[in-house]
Parts: sequence; structure tokens; C-alpha cells
Amino acid sequence: MGRSADYSNEKCAIAGALYVVGEPWTLLIIRDAFRGFSRFEQWQKNTGIARNVLAARLKRLVATGIMHTRPYHQKPLRHEYLLTERGQSLKGVILALYGWGQEHVYKDRQPVLTLRHRQTAETLRPRIYDEGTGSRICLQDILFDYNPHAPSLAELYAETDSESMA
Amino acid sequence: MGRSADYSNEKCAIAGALYVVGEPWTLLIIRDAFRGFSRFEQWQKNTGIARNVLAARLKRLVATGIMHTRPYHQKPLRHEYLLTERGQSLKGVILALYGWGQEHVYKDRQPVLTLRHRQTAETLRPRIYDEGTGSRICLQDILFDYNPHAPSLAELYAETDSESMA
Repeated sequence: MGRSADYSNEKCAIAGALYVVGEPWTLLIIRDAFRGFSRFEQWQKNTGIARNVLAARLKRLVATGIMHTRPYHQKPLRHEYLLTERGQSLKGVILALYGWGQEHVYKDRQPVLTLRHRQTAETLRPRIYDEGTGSRICLQDILFDYNPHAPSLAELYAETDSESMA
Repeated sequence: MGRSADYSNEKCAIAGALYVVGEPWTLLIIRDAFRGFSRFEQWQKNTGIARNVLAARLKRLVATGIMHTRPYHQKPLRHEYLLTERGQSLKGVILALYGWGQEHVYKDRQPVLTLRHRQTAETLRPRIYDEGTGSRICLQDILFDYNPHAPSLAELYAETDSESMA
């Protein structure tokens, strides 16, 4: 999406996130990384994504600091792709997409995913609360107040190391 | 994204969500609907999106049941675009993108958004807990277990009214 849609005048962290992860296939590649995929052939086989598109997406995920590479074979040299901490923290985005897609696309079907706790293995039903008051929040109660003085993405890019933004 | 990337073999609610809302600009149009935008010219002016692309996105948002139209002017007839309930429930996706973009793109900058409670106007800091145990959950503790028997998007489409899936 970054290349094809120009979000650079946006003064918005949502656009900032989409600039990095909004290209077609990118969020599905990240989804599969949470499943343990780390090698080109795993993604290629699972998604059927064209090889040149997959190579371009992985390259950009490394350039934007979402993934890093690690050699797993010497001759010939082969790298695998692993989520960085910055990439790991996209799990909330994947989770929100899952919640909506299960409710509104898969509807009354068996859940596509079961969410489990890493340590206890119990099934989780994530809900939102407010850290300040400790109260549960309904999404419809959340209003977004925009800060009119926020810099645009283009302004941020101009100031920031292109490595972490590109 | 739906038109340009073929996700139809995916057996996944995340892909299902992206098929509906993953095209470039679509999530930013929805973001602005949460801000109160409802007219073509508002989106066009705020985002600078090309008119033909905006028209196509709004049309598809209506076809997929994310928005509905309502006439606001008779001669000439003009419609505005309003989020349906299905569209309103995308707020969690927007919120998750905001959280990541603020932390990882805008970083130490002033928040781009303030999240406020609709009734009390207090500032909110949304966090996740598990409804079953009432405990706070860290994202890294959530594991995704896939259901191998989930139908693919193509299978869902074949069975479902195209109006709500297209």
C-alpha cells in the first residue's frame, strides 16, 4: 500500500501503521510469522503469493524493522525471517482483524482460531478495559480526538532515519 | 486489496477481514467515518485520494455492508455514507492500528489522538483482559491455534449471499 497509495500528507498514526504494513499480503505474512513461519518457501506454499511479490514484501519488512534475517544454511547461504520486537507488537492488529473477521465474515461457523494462553493453555476471550479506571470499555464508547498539531508522515520521514520508517 | 490480491484460498478470518477492508485507502475512509465524515467531498478534501478511487471504495463499502447511504439533498440527488453496525464494529481494528502507529511510527511525539469516553469524556488507556479469568493479558501471551477444518473464503463465498461478502 505504501508504494501505491500516497499517505504522506496524513497526520495520523493509523495511516503511519498502514504505510508500513498496509500493502496487500503484508499482514498475512505477519500473521504466518506468528504461526512460526520463518522461511520463504513456507509462506509461498501456504499463501500461493507470487514469488516476486513475496520477496518484495519480506525485503520491505526487513527495511522497516518488522523482521530481521538470520542465516540457517551456509552453502548456499539461506536466510530465515523472524519478527523483531516491533513486529511482535503487531499482534494486537492481527487480533483485532481476527475478531472482526470471525464475527462478520465467518459468523456462526466454528472459530477459525482458538486463542490460548502461552503458559496455562487456557482459551482466552480478549476484551478491552481502561487502565485508568479499571472498567470494561465498549468500543462504541471510545471517541477519537485528533491533535491538530501532529506532524504529517512526510514531515516525520524527513526527520527520521529512513531505516525505521521507509 | 480484495481485487488485486487473491485471498480466496485462505481459511482464515484475518484474511476474511482484509478481503473486505484491506484495499488501499479503505481503512482510512473508515477512520474518517468515525470522525464524523459522511460526504464524498469531505473524504476527498481530507485525504487527497483520487475521485475515481474514492468512488470505487465507497461503492464497495456499501456493497460489503460496511456503510449504507442516505439522501441529504434532493435536486440534484446526493447521498451521504454512514457506517452500519458491521462497520462500527471495525473500531477495534482502527484502534489497534492507532496503538501500533503511535508507539512505533510517531514514537515520542505528542499523541496524534486522544481517546476519550463518550459519556464521561475522560481519557482512556485501553488494555486487554481475558473475560473468562478477568486477568490482564499481554499480547505475547496469546497463542493462535488454527482450526484445520475451517472453510476457505472461496467456499464461504460460494455459500453466502454475495451482498454481505463481496
